[in-house]
Order: sequence, then C-alpha cells, then structure tokens
Amino acid sequence: MPDAVVLGAGSWGTTFAKVLADGGARTVLWARRPEAAREIDESRRNTRYLPGITLPASLHATSDVRAALADASQVYLAVPSQQLRQLLREHGDAIAPDAPIVSLMKGVEADSRLRMSAVIEQELGIDPGRIAVVSGPNLALEIAQEHPTAAVVSSTSDETARAVAKRARNDYFHSFINHDVIGTEFGGVLKNLVALAIGVVDGVGYGENTKASIMTRGLAEVTDFAVAHGAERETMRGLAGLGDLIATCGSPLSRNFTAGRLLGMGYSRTDVIARMEQVAEGLASVDPVAQLAAAKGVRMPILEQVKLVLDGAMDPKDIAPHLTTDDEPIKE
Amino acid sequence: MPDAVVLGAGSWGTTFAKVLADGGARTVLWARRPEAAREIDESRRNTRYLPGITLPASLHATSDVRAALADASQVYLAVPSQQLRQLLREHGDAIAPDAPIVSLMKGVEADSRLRMSAVIEQELGIDPGRIAVVSGPNLALEIAQEHPTAAVVSSTSDETARAVAKRARNDYFHSFINHDVIGTEFGGVLKNLVALAIGVVDGVGYGENTKASIMTRGLAEVTDFAVAHGAERETMRGLAGLGDLIATCGSPLSRNFTAGRLLGMGYSRTDVIARMEQVAEGLASVDPVAQLAAAKGVRMPILEQVKLVLDGAMDPKDIAPHLTTDDEPIKE
Repeated sequence: MPDAVVLGAGSWGTTFAKVLADGGARTVLWARRPEAAREIDESRRNTRYLPGITLPASLHATSDVRAALADASQVYLAVPSQQLRQLLREHGDAIAPDAPIVSLMKGVEADSRLRMSAVIEQELGIDPGRIAVVSGPNLALEIAQEHPTAAVVSSTSDETARAVAKRARNDYFHSFINHDVIGTEFGGVLKNLVALAIGVVDGVGYGENTKASIMTRGLAEVTDFAVAHGAERETMRGLAGLGDLIATCGSPLSRNFTAGRLLGMGYSRTDVIARMEQVAEGLASVDPVAQLAAAKGVRMPILEQVKLVLDGAMDPKDIAPHLTTDDEPIKE
Repeated sequence: MPDAVVLGAGSWGTTFAKVLADGGARTVLWARRPEAAREIDESRRNTRYLPGITLPASLHATSDVRAALADASQVYLAVPSQQLRQLLREHGDAIAPDAPIVSLMKGVEADSRLRMSAVIEQELGIDPGRIAVVSGPNLALEIAQEHPTAAVVSSTSDETARAVAKRARNDYFHSFINHDVIGTEFGGVLKNLVALAIGVVDGVGYGENTKASIMTRGLAEVTDFAVAHGAERETMRGLAGLGDLIATCGSPLSRNFTAGRLLGMGYSRTDVIARMEQVAEGLASVDPVAQLAAAKGVRMPILEQVKLVLDGAMDPKDIAPHLTTDDEPIKE
C-alpha cells in the first residue's frame, strides 16, 4: 500500500515524487504516457522533463491512474491547471475516502477563475480540511538536483497540514505549515506580475537597486491585493509569497521574466506574444488583476506601470519603483 | 546659501550629492583631500570613486569643512563610520542651529556599538527630532548611473523626515518616509549577515531556490532580532530591510557576499580574512549578534549555521534554509 501517489509526471510532479521517495515514502508516480511510465520505472529517468536526473530506485511509475490511486494514503496533484477538473471528474471516485488531497499546482482555472483548491473542493464535494496546497521557492530542476530549499504546506486543517508536511520532507526539502490556503495559492499566482516588471527592468538594462525596490514595493502591492481577497498578510511575507517571488525573479528562465524582458527591450505586446511559444501567465493576468484591484480600492502603481508599458503608453525606461508626482512625501 | 551640504566624497557621498543637485538643491560636497575637491569642482568628475560618471554642473565642492557647513540648510553625513565622532567633535559647532542632520551611513561604532544616529545625538547633544537617516536598496554606482530606485528617510520628527525627503528626491530617486529610526538603521547592518549566508550558498554552487528560502527565513530572523531591540516589524519588510537585503544579496561585488562565497568554496575563516583587502562587516558581526540574540531569546537558525561554517564545524554544503531536526513540522 503506497504512502503517496503523485499524478502528473512533468518536471514538477516527477521532482515532487522524488522528494517524497527520498523522504522514505513508498511513492507511485502516474504518467499519462505509458512510455514515460516505463522509462521512469525501468531506467529511473524522465529524460523529457528532468534530463540528467537519476530517480530513486524506490519510486515506481504507472500509466494506470486508477491503479495508482488505489489505497494511496496521500494524493498529490501536479497536472496542468486546465486539466485538473476533467481528471477529478473521471477518476476522483478511485481516491481512498480519507486520503489528504494535495495541490502542487500554481494557477487559476481559466473559465471559473477558481484557485486549484477550490476546483478540488467543488469537483470532489469534500470537506476543505482534506485539501492541502504546497508552495514556495521551488524551481523544479534545482530541487531535483537536491539543492536545499523549503516550502509551506497549507491546509485549513492542522492535522492535514502536519500529515502532509511530515511526508513531504527530507534532507534537502523542508516543509513548514500554515493554515492560510488562499494566501499560499495567491502567492504563486501574483508573483508572476512582479516577475514581469522585473523582466522589463532587466530588458531596459537597470541593475539591482531598481529590481530590489520594485520587488519590495511589488510585494507590498500584491500583499494588499491578496489581503483584500481573504489572504493573511504574514503568508505573503513567507515562503509562498516573498520566497517564491525572489526565486522567480532570480531565474531568467521564467516565462514571465522573459516576456517582461522583451517588453523592456522595446517589443510590443503583440510581438512578445508572437515570439513566445507558451503564453506567460503574468501577461494574461495584468488586466483582470488591475480591474479587481480597482474594484476593491487597492493601489497598485507598479502593476499600473506594467500595464502602461504593455499598452504602449509608457516607455519601459520610465518604469520606476513608484508612480507618484505627489508634492508631499508619502509614508512607506 | 546652500540648501544642502554633503560631508564625505567617497562613492556614496558623491552619489548622494548628485541626487540632491539633480533634484534642484544648491549642493556643496566636502572632500577631505583638496585635489579631490578641485577635480569635482573643475572637471565634474570623481575618478577615484565614481569612474565614468559626469557630475552636475550645479554641484560645488570644497575641502574647507567649516566653509561648507556655514549656512547650509541641511547637513548630510557620508564619512567612514569610525570617523564620524571625531569629525562632529571638531566641526559640529559650525552646523547651522536648526539644520536637519542626516546620516547616510550604515554601520555601528566599533567601541560603543552605537548606531550612527546615536553617535550624532550624543556628540552634538541635540534633539533626536533634528536627526534623520536614509537607507534602502542603494548601490551607489547604479544610482550615479541614474537607474531608478527608492529609499526611506526616517526621523522621529515627521517634519524633519518630510523636509529631507522633499530635498532628497528627483526623477530617478524616490524617497518615502517613516519614523522608525532604529529599524531603518538596523536593516542596513543586519542584511550583511544574510548576504554572508547567500555568499556561502553561492560558493557551494546552489541556485535560486536555496537563496530565496534563506533570504525569506533570514529576513524573518533578523526582523525578530531587530524587533527585540526596539525596531518596528514593518520597517524590516520595507526598503531599508527587505529592499536593501535583496540588492545586497544580488550584487556579487558586496564584500559580505564575497566573504561568504570564499567560505562556501571551502576556505577557512582565517583564509578569508587574509584574502580580503577590507574586512567584511558581516564577518565581524556574526558572534556579537548571535550572543545578543541568545540573550534576548531570539532564534536565529541561519545565523547559527553561518557561525558553524565559520568555526569549521559545518560543511558549507550542509547549510540549509532551516536547522531543525524537529519531529513535528513547525509553523512558518
């Protein structure tokens, strides 16, 4: 009987399965493609998503989702955000009745605008206390390389959070807990907006001061936004907020950073979208978040500047860690 | 009658004089060496400290400190921390009676362990409300290159903070205000400890996740420490805390980062000190801060790890964003 099953064998799902197995959990990883499951099981490799990484011998993989779910004590979800609902609809009944269900995903469902935990709750019709989410400064490849990091496991139920945090930890991966699911999930979504601004600044050629002041003020802005939507301020200052923000802004491979960088170099919004293979989620979020902020009366000057740059109404080099021509100095 | 005088023509003093002059203030810069004053005044250059930067024509320099102080409406101090007391003792009487006195310095006096604002208050015997401090993500050369950034001007007097913030701002430098002088000064000192840990991690070869989780948990640690010494939590999350921390940790030129990096590569404390021309302030602060933390009952696991690495009692590759072997997961 497996301790944990991970659904989704992309880079993050595979990495998290390794984290669990390295922590001593009997772990099964479900891959949609039979050849991917076979490669993981037989060669201890996932060359498509984690080139160069050897997976633990104790990790098993299968392409039979119902067999994977059978009897697993904990279920971890790492499928693409837009496919989650359909997967749960088809196979949710195979999940053991009391197993905690853990979202490793960052994003919102496009149509409903729901966070992943809300999709799980709605689709399975279960008590929210059975659901947990994991977030933090967690670039998958670095964790697969066993660079030490930390994350936060969040659930409205203390028991669930603790049970998951005890499983999802090992020598190089440390799990803290909290009970603010909204803030923990929002951190992973909103950081993309700040990464976009940091990319713009990098594209212009500005240095560490400009980035640091935009990250600091940007965190304050997205925190105000998240708090207005039910998150706790502390969460945004922790690993799922600040931690994830720093890691994302420090990684030039992030799609949002790249999109911002192209804008900073002078490409238009249309050019940027055309040049990128995958849409940067941050780009699509700028307008809706700005509207929601306005509706709640939250001031977001940096987001507004990014929006002006996107709309071609501001030269990227004029982006700055403030948007004020106030005569009087204002309190930080 | 000058609006502002800046004492000290190193890279930061010269840069700040440019910030003031570019904001429209009639500014005088005092340089200890007559040839430095002459070069600034005649060639609009400070080749020793700001190579490649052209200074504004409106900025004037002198090596006569008493002439510089005469009638200046605001006095900015940017001399080496250990020379401040002597300078004030000799020339404090030349400062105009109501002029705000602004510390641009980061550090503590070695013998007394006093913050710079406390040295000013003690030596001049003036009302603390006349004193302000400026801090933030402010790498001098980037500001001299006019990359946009922000800082916080702090004074117990709202009037002083506002008067200074109105002077010390322009198109590329934005000043916010607060009233927490202790927190604003502590931010600039304590960030060096986190930069040391980030340097170690970089020397080992770890990536963005590890750095981000150490910066996040490190900020929480130094915030607890500063709050136990009278700072406000909010200040540490602002430009003088988080902002300065991010800029310092992002700049490979920082002495603390470099010292940490050498430790991470396997050099001993003795080797590191021998190899560096100037002492990294963070190195000297590890032991005293750890003692003060213990005395106040503040837990600082990352600082403790850096101390173990310095003492040769921990392999740098074992440094991690936690120091816990607790059986139970703990709250973030």
